[in-house]
Amino acid sequence: MPQFLATDDVDFESRFAALLRAKREDSPDVDDVVADIIADVRARGDAAVIELTAKFDKLDLKPDRLRFSQAEIAAECAKVSNEDRAALEMAAARIRAYHARQLPDDAMWTDETGAELGWRWTPVSAAGLYVPGGLASYPSSVLMNAIPAKVAGVSRLAIVVPTPEGVTNPLVLLAAQIAGVDEIYRIGGAQAIAALAYGTQTIAPVDKITGPGNAFVAAAKRRVFGKVGIDMIAGPSEILVIADKDNDPDWIALDLLSQAEHDESAQSLLITDDADFGRAVTAAVDERLETLERRHIAGPSWRDFGAVITVENMAQAVALSDRIAPEHLEICTADAETLAQQIHHAGAIFIGGWTPEAIGDYIGGPNHVLPTARSARFSSGLSVMDFIKRTTLSRMTPAALATIGPAAERLAQSESLQAHGLSVRARLDRLNMGDI
Amino acid sequence: MPQFLATDDVDFESRFAALLRAKREDSPDVDDVVADIIADVRARGDAAVIELTAKFDKLDLKPDRLRFSQAEIAAECAKVSNEDRAALEMAAARIRAYHARQLPDDAMWTDETGAELGWRWTPVSAAGLYVPGGLASYPSSVLMNAIPAKVAGVSRLAIVVPTPEGVTNPLVLLAAQIAGVDEIYRIGGAQAIAALAYGTQTIAPVDKITGPGNAFVAAAKRRVFGKVGIDMIAGPSEILVIADKDNDPDWIALDLLSQAEHDESAQSLLITDDADFGRAVTAAVDERLETLERRHIAGPSWRDFGAVITVENMAQAVALSDRIAPEHLEICTADAETLAQQIHHAGAIFIGGWTPEAIGDYIGGPNHVLPTARSARFSSGLSVMDFIKRTTLSRMTPAALATIGPAAERLAQSESLQAHGLSVRARLDRLNMGDI
Repeated sequence: MPQFLATDDVDFESRFAALLRAKREDSPDVDDVVADIIADVRARGDAAVIELTAKFDKLDLKPDRLRFSQAEIAAECAKVSNEDRAALEMAAARIRAYHARQLPDDAMWTDETGAELGWRWTPVSAAGLYVPGGLASYPSSVLMNAIPAKVAGVSRLAIVVPTPEGVTNPLVLLAAQIAGVDEIYRIGGAQAIAALAYGTQTIAPVDKITGPGNAFVAAAKRRVFGKVGIDMIAGPSEILVIADKDNDPDWIALDLLSQAEHDESAQSLLITDDADFGRAVTAAVDERLETLERRHIAGPSWRDFGAVITVENMAQAVALSDRIAPEHLEICTADAETLAQQIHHAGAIFIGGWTPEAIGDYIGGPNHVLPTARSARFSSGLSVMDFIKRTTLSRMTPAALATIGPAAERLAQSESLQAHGLSVRARLDRLNMGDI
Repeated sequence: MPQFLATDDVDFESRFAALLRAKREDSPDVDDVVADIIADVRARGDAAVIELTAKFDKLDLKPDRLRFSQAEIAAECAKVSNEDRAALEMAAARIRAYHARQLPDDAMWTDETGAELGWRWTPVSAAGLYVPGGLASYPSSVLMNAIPAKVAGVSRLAIVVPTPEGVTNPLVLLAAQIAGVDEIYRIGGAQAIAALAYGTQTIAPVDKITGPGNAFVAAAKRRVFGKVGIDMIAGPSEILVIADKDNDPDWIALDLLSQAEHDESAQSLLITDDADFGRAVTAAVDERLETLERRHIAGPSWRDFGAVITVENMAQAVALSDRIAPEHLEICTADAETLAQQIHHAGAIFIGGWTPEAIGDYIGGPNHVLPTARSARFSSGLSVMDFIKRTTLSRMTPAALATIGPAAERLAQSESLQAHGLSVRARLDRLNMGDI
């Protein structure tokens, strides 16, 4: 049974706080193992990657087999049905159109002193994308990571995807091809992250690594951070649905279950202003759980981490939502648009009953890589911004320097940074000499 | 003596690669100590912070003395000279004007299916800013961190600044006041980072922590990352100057020294197409080093990590600069603007001989918190973007869901996520029943 809370319970505050604090994930401490793997790949390159792939993925490779050939990719892609291909292409087109709007403008202006100021955005040159292998090998994840990189202008995009015992997911390769990925390597784990960060004889190093992975991959990403950029380290998925009684309980139940089926550590929460509706939703969840293929995952998630919170009014729902800062927020109320505007902290909002969260996972257009574990308080989902960076620009004229230079000199002196001050003073003295 | 390299040397490539690889900083491993400090502050709150402040800063505090009172701040600010105050206010106004232009727009549009898509930016609610105490307590750093947060709309901005043996820098407090900081605490070290991240009885927790610090502060920021957001962990400062012979060697020498005087691990590089000019600059550096107050810092930095690289043409200079990906890049050539446009990787570019890098440290307007150690390949300087986050928005209509829903269902099936597919299917079935 999920938890039931109501804001008018005497112990509501303590139970809600406990819900916020609940640790849903026990990451095994694999940091020492990962440190050894990274050191080994740095020292021995391909040879280490090949050995580790034989050990962990039960797959024997040669250096020239690390990378999928064009012929292999074409052969795998040919296995995909026309329907699946069309669905991937529609998803890719929509994701591309959404992300293309994220490209920010460069700027350059002249201020009142005559100084020119501005900035310029440039893409990361080379990026690597981790794609989990085996069962959790999701083509949608390839699109969501690769398309923003390509829209940003990344000229070299490499994917690593382990193929345990040689098993390849044709949809993953097709998604990579549709997204414009340049290189695909059949390696995974910490060794793949190390190869991307430091390079090997056959894999050139990249500047930025994104994509989900298991505890080894997460630990490796943390370790190579600084040498390369990384995206966030995502935790288990979450959804919060705010719904009034004018919804079909079965729709809401399915939306809650579509998070719960991801992972036993996933969390599905419902906030409603109608206790009867809350009970109807839990009944619908129970009924769906009887036949759901992934009930062995969704069941424990719902039982251990699910909750139904009854509020007196929707203003309370908004306030609680901001304390939760959910990864996914679905608002199914008559005034959903208005409530959505009042939310401060959420990764993605799905507005109205016709917008199941699953649309956002695949085809809506916005990214499905979103901040988990309350980190929407301070971070955003994956976007084009993750693959570009800004260079600030300044150009002083003699007149501009004459206007603002003395203040810089003064501040440098106050910080006892004499050379800073002198570098300004030498130029100001030249101006005072009337040379200019 | 700094290193001298020329692109036409036979061993140039290996020496340049060694220069790129050179590790300039040996961070002591303080991770275990920091873990204990954080655990102590989480467990005991104010009491732990007060004990650790007594131990490390030789300062006895009571809980009600952790925070500077308004009267104390006013008394300290009154000590600042009018000239220093005016310089700080000019700097603050210019930094504010520059950063105000960084605020991105929200977006919402209706696509060809009738779906509404977009995003909305919201500020981080509460941010904390670390300011080093003692000698390296820089008011300019307060402005550069606090103003972007306030421009972003952060409603609660707290500063922690240690006051070893009770020594306070009035300029730091005045800079905080000018920037609109809401709370100032006289604590530092890992204990201050822990207090900001987890809160104590008197310090409410924040959502994001920025600002420079020593090895303890850096390790603490790494550890609390995830619980709160952090900015980059900055390494020693760097400058690359690209200059032709039509420059005053003394100006360029002072620009190089204004990085070198920061830190013995700082790095100052010169690329020129005229070997004689390179020698003239090094002679000017030597001459300035004879009298520079911080020659005991700038001297070792220049000797150990400085380099003069002679190129055959400025196209080579641009290519080398991109491999260096410098934090600060100063371009002092006739075609400085053109060269600046060809650069892909740099934190900040200072264009033309009248733009000494020190202008950017204090008063130009752009931020002086910039990516070091080649991380300009994948990251940007501090900006308003560090204090806001994006929520993506989607709203489907029944017609939009009818158009794109089947593809989402198909992709969910291909990923064996049945509930995802069913959450779409249940709605599509309702449409097919003709209810809508």
